[in-house]
Amino acid sequence: MSAIRQTTSKSMMLFSGRAYPELTDEIAGHLGVTPTPTAAYEFANGELFVRFEESVRGCDAFVVQSHTAPINTWLMEQLIMVDALKRASAKRITVVAPFFPYARQDKKHRGREPISARLVADMFKVAGADRLMAVDLHTDQIQGFFDGPVDHLFAIDLLVAHVREKWGDRELTVVSPDSGRVRMAERWTNKLGSGTPLAFIHKTRDVTRPNQAVANRVVGMVEGRACILVDDMIDTGGTIVAAAETLFAAGATDVIVAATHGVLSGPAVDRLKNSQVSEVVVTNTLPIEPERQFDKLTVLSIAPLLARAIKEVFEDGSVTSLFGGAS
Amino acid sequence: MSAIRQTTSKSMMLFSGRAYPELTDEIAGHLGVTPTPTAAYEFANGELFVRFEESVRGCDAFVVQSHTAPINTWLMEQLIMVDALKRASAKRITVVAPFFPYARQDKKHRGREPISARLVADMFKVAGADRLMAVDLHTDQIQGFFDGPVDHLFAIDLLVAHVREKWGDRELTVVSPDSGRVRMAERWTNKLGSGTPLAFIHKTRDVTRPNQAVANRVVGMVEGRACILVDDMIDTGGTIVAAAETLFAAGATDVIVAATHGVLSGPAVDRLKNSQVSEVVVTNTLPIEPERQFDKLTVLSIAPLLARAIKEVFEDGSVTSLFGGAS
Amino acid sequence: MSAIRQTTSKSMMLFSGRAYPELTDEIAGHLGVTPTPTAAYEFANGELFVRFEESVRGCDAFVVQSHTAPINTWLMEQLIMVDALKRASAKRITVVAPFFPYARQDKKHRGREPISARLVADMFKVAGADRLMAVDLHTDQIQGFFDGPVDHLFAIDLLVAHVREKWGDRELTVVSPDSGRVRMAERWTNKLGSGTPLAFIHKTRDVTRPNQAVANRVVGMVEGRACILVDDMIDTGGTIVAAAETLFAAGATDVIVAATHGVLSGPAVDRLKNSQVSEVVVTNTLPIEPERQFDKLTVLSIAPLLARAIKEVFEDGSVTSLFGGAS
Amino acid sequence: MSAIRQTTSKSMMLFSGRAYPELTDEIAGHLGVTPTPTAAYEFANGELFVRFEESVRGCDAFVVQSHTAPINTWLMEQLIMVDALKRASAKRITVVAPFFPYARQDKKHRGREPISARLVADMFKVAGADRLMAVDLHTDQIQGFFDGPVDHLFAIDLLVAHVREKWGDRELTVVSPDSGRVRMAERWTNKLGSGTPLAFIHKTRDVTRPNQAVANRVVGMVEGRACILVDDMIDTGGTIVAAAETLFAAGATDVIVAATHGVLSGPAVDRLKNSQVSEVVVTNTLPIEPERQFDKLTVLSIAPLLARAIKEVFEDGSVTSLFGGAS
Amino acid sequence: MSAIRQTTSKSMMLFSGRAYPELTDEIAGHLGVTPTPTAAYEFANGELFVRFEESVRGCDAFVVQSHTAPINTWLMEQLIMVDALKRASAKRITVVAPFFPYARQDKKHRGREPISARLVADMFKVAGADRLMAVDLHTDQIQGFFDGPVDHLFAIDLLVAHVREKWGDRELTVVSPDSGRVRMAERWTNKLGSGTPLAFIHKTRDVTRPNQAVANRVVGMVEGRACILVDDMIDTGGTIVAAAETLFAAGATDVIVAATHGVLSGPAVDRLKNSQVSEVVVTNTLPIEPERQFDKLTVLSIAPLLARAIKEVFEDGSVTSLFGGAS
Amino acid sequence: MSAIRQTTSKSMMLFSGRAYPELTDEIAGHLGVTPTPTAAYEFANGELFVRFEESVRGCDAFVVQSHTAPINTWLMEQLIMVDALKRASAKRITVVAPFFPYARQDKKHRGREPISARLVADMFKVAGADRLMAVDLHTDQIQGFFDGPVDHLFAIDLLVAHVREKWGDRELTVVSPDSGRVRMAERWTNKLGSGTPLAFIHKTRDVTRPNQAVANRVVGMVEGRACILVDDMIDTGGTIVAAAETLFAAGATDVIVAATHGVLSGPAVDRLKNSQVSEVVVTNTLPIEPERQFDKLTVLSIAPLLARAIKEVFEDGSVTSLFGGAS
Repeated sequence: MSAIRQTTSKSMMLFSGRAYPELTDEIAGHLGVTPTPTAAYEFANGELFVRFEESVRGCDAFVVQSHTAPINTWLMEQLIMVDALKRASAKRITVVAPFFPYARQDKKHRGREPISARLVADMFKVAGADRLMAVDLHTDQIQGFFDGPVDHLFAIDLLVAHVREKWGDRELTVVSPDSGRVRMAERWTNKLGSGTPLAFIHKTRDVTRPNQAVANRVVGMVEGRACILVDDMIDTGGTIVAAAETLFAAGATDVIVAATHGVLSGPAVDRLKNSQVSEVVVTNTLPIEPERQFDKLTVLSIAPLLARAIKEVFEDGSVTSLFGGAS
Repeated sequence: MSAIRQTTSKSMMLFSGRAYPELTDEIAGHLGVTPTPTAAYEFANGELFVRFEESVRGCDAFVVQSHTAPINTWLMEQLIMVDALKRASAKRITVVAPFFPYARQDKKHRGREPISARLVADMFKVAGADRLMAVDLHTDQIQGFFDGPVDHLFAIDLLVAHVREKWGDRELTVVSPDSGRVRMAERWTNKLGSGTPLAFIHKTRDVTRPNQAVANRVVGMVEGRACILVDDMIDTGGTIVAAAETLFAAGATDVIVAATHGVLSGPAVDRLKNSQVSEVVVTNTLPIEPERQFDKLTVLSIAPLLARAIKEVFEDGSVTSLFGGAS
Repeated sequence: MSAIRQTTSKSMMLFSGRAYPELTDEIAGHLGVTPTPTAAYEFANGELFVRFEESVRGCDAFVVQSHTAPINTWLMEQLIMVDALKRASAKRITVVAPFFPYARQDKKHRGREPISARLVADMFKVAGADRLMAVDLHTDQIQGFFDGPVDHLFAIDLLVAHVREKWGDRELTVVSPDSGRVRMAERWTNKLGSGTPLAFIHKTRDVTRPNQAVANRVVGMVEGRACILVDDMIDTGGTIVAAAETLFAAGATDVIVAATHGVLSGPAVDRLKNSQVSEVVVTNTLPIEPERQFDKLTVLSIAPLLARAIKEVFEDGSVTSLFGGAS
Repeated sequence: MSAIRQTTSKSMMLFSGRAYPELTDEIAGHLGVTPTPTAAYEFANGELFVRFEESVRGCDAFVVQSHTAPINTWLMEQLIMVDALKRASAKRITVVAPFFPYARQDKKHRGREPISARLVADMFKVAGADRLMAVDLHTDQIQGFFDGPVDHLFAIDLLVAHVREKWGDRELTVVSPDSGRVRMAERWTNKLGSGTPLAFIHKTRDVTRPNQAVANRVVGMVEGRACILVDDMIDTGGTIVAAAETLFAAGATDVIVAATHGVLSGPAVDRLKNSQVSEVVVTNTLPIEPERQFDKLTVLSIAPLLARAIKEVFEDGSVTSLFGGAS
Repeated sequence: MSAIRQTTSKSMMLFSGRAYPELTDEIAGHLGVTPTPTAAYEFANGELFVRFEESVRGCDAFVVQSHTAPINTWLMEQLIMVDALKRASAKRITVVAPFFPYARQDKKHRGREPISARLVADMFKVAGADRLMAVDLHTDQIQGFFDGPVDHLFAIDLLVAHVREKWGDRELTVVSPDSGRVRMAERWTNKLGSGTPLAFIHKTRDVTRPNQAVANRVVGMVEGRACILVDDMIDTGGTIVAAAETLFAAGATDVIVAATHGVLSGPAVDRLKNSQVSEVVVTNTLPIEPERQFDKLTVLSIAPLLARAIKEVFEDGSVTSLFGGAS
Repeated sequence: MSAIRQTTSKSMMLFSGRAYPELTDEIAGHLGVTPTPTAAYEFANGELFVRFEESVRGCDAFVVQSHTAPINTWLMEQLIMVDALKRASAKRITVVAPFFPYARQDKKHRGREPISARLVADMFKVAGADRLMAVDLHTDQIQGFFDGPVDHLFAIDLLVAHVREKWGDRELTVVSPDSGRVRMAERWTNKLGSGTPLAFIHKTRDVTRPNQAVANRVVGMVEGRACILVDDMIDTGGTIVAAAETLFAAGATDVIVAATHGVLSGPAVDRLKNSQVSEVVVTNTLPIEPERQFDKLTVLSIAPLLARAIKEVFEDGSVTSLFGGAS
């Protein structure tokens, strides 16, 4: 007999980086699986080490990392996990990066700049990743930076459902905090219903003082209305809070901030807490420790969406049905 | 003696696809060079053939093609030219694609779609291109689709200078034809001067009839003003003319359409000619034959900008200084 | 539990380009499957768009395109389909190109020419194709242009069976229309029986007028015999009809033309119709619309062969048994 | 119905190069399989040819070759086998190279030298190998030369078991023949038991005569003891026999030589036979023909270890448990 | 100052494998250069080692090897030389393989065969070769196997000049020894003059005994004429000598054998010496040691052609002018 | 005229990461150049950004980074710098990593571990690096991890010269702190003179308590001698200080620690300061801030060696002459 024949089965395994294991645990709970036991630590000089404590041969691996600070450390940890999986004969490796690192560096604004988002995509590829999964990429084009399938999930349905439930009885206007996010705000108006007005903040510059914004001007109808200020992420909160102030100055009655990624770096928490903003809604693609949480902040869980997508990918189902925002 | 030593020199050669040789000739004129004689024709079944009639060994090759209809033919011709240059030992090959083909397919809008702009970038690479040069990519992120240097030029200074000269004494508002181009319109307001207002057309949908726009609404101040309606390209003209009508209905006194790429497909010419639009300004990144030209149309030449960029690339100068629009 | 285990299954899906959907339908009929519903169209400027209307995750995809005119359009469409399948997580992608485009440009005849057949193979690869399937490649070496498995099918048994049935009672000679196809003609003699004579047309040149054929001379025994003039394709018909005339002039009683690919470009139909040729036999690797068909033309269907090969590839059977002509 | 669905199975096939088919047969016996019938021969000018006589579509292929002299011929044969498997649609290809060729050229000792071990790894990759399996690589770092999984097996348990059984009642010292293999000798002391002393041969040089070793000096306790002289391979035996002489001169009572790879080139057999060495223990990663065997030589079979590893790889089991020496 | 600027020069260095250093010396003589001193030897187990004895940083390297028996050894030596050059920072590496190894395995004749010529091209690439130079590839398509420039030289002018001088006063017929080389024979008739007849040997088979040639039949006019039997190589001489016998049996007065590559394996010398053949003409792309030479054998030097091509490549001149046979 | 011709020049530019700019400044001083002005900073969430403030087109770029803590940040910064240089058309990019990050993870010790040093080499490559330069790689094999030239420099001459000057009048023994570094220690004995004894520390284990070293034993002659304890790096100092104690216990009069890389993590400084060690000698491949320096510590500058190597690489000189330790 010159061949041994066997029926085949496939197995899915979940791996968690150390940045935010609670998110992986939550996903795992939805899937009815436990994350693969993994030894991971730092050497004294900061070099990372990872070893899986169970065989991963032939598995369909999903490697979840949350790219919070220290972001380069967590990125490198995930790359090392992918390398170890590749060398240990995982059959397929999917990088799950709910907040894709360096997504804002997706183009050269001027000469002699990097396109770090492409670099990150290439690094995942060279490490051994077959596929990527991410939530609300800063721009959709980043899908094209990876040479392979990208499952791009959208949190908009989650956010809209919350906003509608809590603020749906008000006169709403959807507002983009700057000129580059108006399309995204328009998607919100489609979800909230046909007549919802759309506005944005126009930053004007004094041409005699280049590179310096001198005034924010609201373009659109906001007076006497509750404004939903939408963005993909809240980082230092500077732009958002300034936008909210402009809206209140223009007569808005309420400002609700909604964003997928709660980066909340540096002064963000204080700025938002001390602002007139009524509510800040984000998801937990990034961890927000108790000490950074505050009364006006609502954190919705992204885990059910990720769990469903992972399940569909493993079972060759259709992820497209999860793309609520892709209208 | 175990080595022969020689001082080195480098030579620049210009190659032209057959889609729009007049543009290459114009560039060549600015550079003081003639395009390399090339035999190019179609076999009876449509397969293309190219052969260069001078040695190209060691040259710094710039391959200019204008991606007008039949666009797949001209794309394939340029790829074949690159392949022939690679196999004939050109030292470096720069693809010059003033209008980058398939640039609008830069992301998956829904599942199971291609990202054809990335595919095109990869095809240029696999054919042998070392670098790309393009004007006003549909989105800046396309730079990141190519694994190598991309010289991304901007026509905005050219267009603004014309508009300012001709319409500068009027009360101007810059208008984006939809929610996705507001950032670009904002760049225009920065160029035109600090106080210039910004507006855009908000397409609203009837949620009971998905995928169907039911109304265009102007967001921003346009009444009694001359509106500069800006976009990267005018294809069939449908969106632009509808936007212009909306602007006139909202009280605009004039509508000037300004775009880098005059694709002007199908009904575009008739639509624009018959519209109330005062002027349509484009550049010649794509050919516009005499029979498609009309009174209100102004075509500015992009050749000087391309010639300067090619010269800088050849001489290792800085192209950044040409990036007028990268503010 | 740290892994979810599942038995695996695989599914085959068939995709059709728009060049010749009837061929795919015929293949599908033999396989008992229907081609996957696909939205495909051209934008106004000629850019193509494709979207699959069912989930393709994990499928074993066979993408059939017939590379007829406009050949660059159909090639690009197939590349875009492959890109979309790759990004939508097809498990394996086989390009089915019954007539491989640009196969005649498989070498540099002189300096500074492309090798477009290699370029096409590389473009399929970079788009995401894992494997190729083709019928009667212009030269066998093209298999080596693709970095992966190529299933190379042969139509010779199909053609020989027809010829034998219809002309088998005659004294036959197999003739190659030029000096480069004699090997292929020899394969026919092996199929037709040991004693079948072999001849070819020798194009002689006047050395004082280079690149210009001055005479066709028959080498081999054709007088008083029915000649089977064989080639891989009939393009404009010029060579074939001239060869037939030479054969009749040399005393042939009949000339039957047999070729796998009926390209039939430009003047081909008129030339063949008006010639003394008794019969022209081709397969339908390329579409021949009713208006290009003529009395003397016999079109054999290649669909059963392709269907069997696709089935074997899907089921990991042996395709070698289909290689009738590989003797 | 737009998809045909089928449950999947997988099949393992074993392929043997011609260098040492007895080893493959032995492995096959342990697995209960027969090597795939293969036609392989040399053309008159030394070019090799290989053809498999059964369908290999979709199989999990293990290609065993033993890299004995003429080593370049056997390396090329294995590469050609891999190429043929790739083009014949094997699903996965594992190169089994018990003695990895060119492993000693794993770094540049001086400028302008090759790193041939990396070159070999890259050649396996470009030919189509997905994975490698090897026994006792000259240095562990060679695993990192291959861009994919490497199953690195260790023969130490096999060798230690034999030595312990035969010499375990003696006072043992483990000796490295030079300064670069002390780590490996230390692994032996760990296996043999806590108190086993460790020694090595220190080659001193006369600085006035560079590149010339002038003396071998034993560092460590060997007087009155049975010395186990360990190395990864015995090539010409020069170093080993000189080391043994130094050990006897330093008072060793016995010297047992243990190595994984019995290369035994040129004068090796005579040198060892004529030396005072008590026993030479190797495995059969390389063939040792009867005429090169001698009384003091013990050859242990590596086939059971390879068979177990192949089985685990095929069944997605854990190979790690086989890594006895990886402590 | 933030940059150090320097004028550049380039240097050409010639490297010789050990298969046939006399050829490299002859090339070097024409170029006025000496081959770079190189240490090269075999380890006891057959592994090869190479080290260059002068700095090669930044050089334009031409690595000449003649692929005679033991062919796999010489191929591996050349690959290792290329690897060493790459790692030692050569600027550009050209593999000069006058007789391209494994060129006859340029396609799959049947299923489950390798395409070794593509494998060799890929191995050169992965080792670090930027370009290839070869003489009379077995088929022109092999150029397309390498992803980069291939300088393909032709020996036909050299051979024709010799034949014309020595046999030009006779009635000549050019003969292909089989059906696959008729095109090449036709090129000879073009060179020898318009009226030269063309013939070939038709191998017929008995269909009841497949795979066995039963008769050679001459197709074409040879009676009473001097036949130039042309091929790209003479390996064992079996085909050629059988063809010559068929020609004499058909009335040929003389048979002159002309081929680029004198492989002359195994029985070739005896066969040719003892045949009726009048003269055998080859070039020295492969070495023919004195003991393999014989009276009827004429060996023309290919060195001047290679030297000119290398010079043109180094100086970015046109090699196309050397392609005498590319008509 | 169809080509513009120009003589060429080349320019070298030096770039500095922010980890240890003083080292780059020192190198720059030796070269007579200033590092290229570069804007580099961190976004609030830790993402890095880099932009060069001068044109880098066509330059020969050397990018110096010192991989100290936070090591993943500095690695990512260097990768981003390389990406930006690639996209800004640098002609050649050399990564200068005096201490190669993750060098200790150069193999899998057990299953399911990464080989991070290979991953780092691949990441440099995919970012755009053409070449690497490093000092005293943890193992020489790491050169083979990079697909391109690696200039591997050695600090041994620098260290030996210092030790000889300060301790040369003593009876010296060179000691390796464990069994894996004996070869390196042997190189020291060759440099220090023929008769210098060699010793190492043998870690013995209790087989009943695996993975736990129970005793350090000196193998070799150290009593009454000054011991030079050599290693490639000192990280936490644990191994080194334990080795020193073992040496003193065995009768050493002095222990001098010499290593290329002074990582000096965590408790290292305290351990060394409080130990009996007489002197600790390292180079400045990594920064040692004033607060981590101590009396017994001598830091030698590696900058002159790096400057000379960079100069040779730029000028295509021979770096081999700098490889003092490659004996």
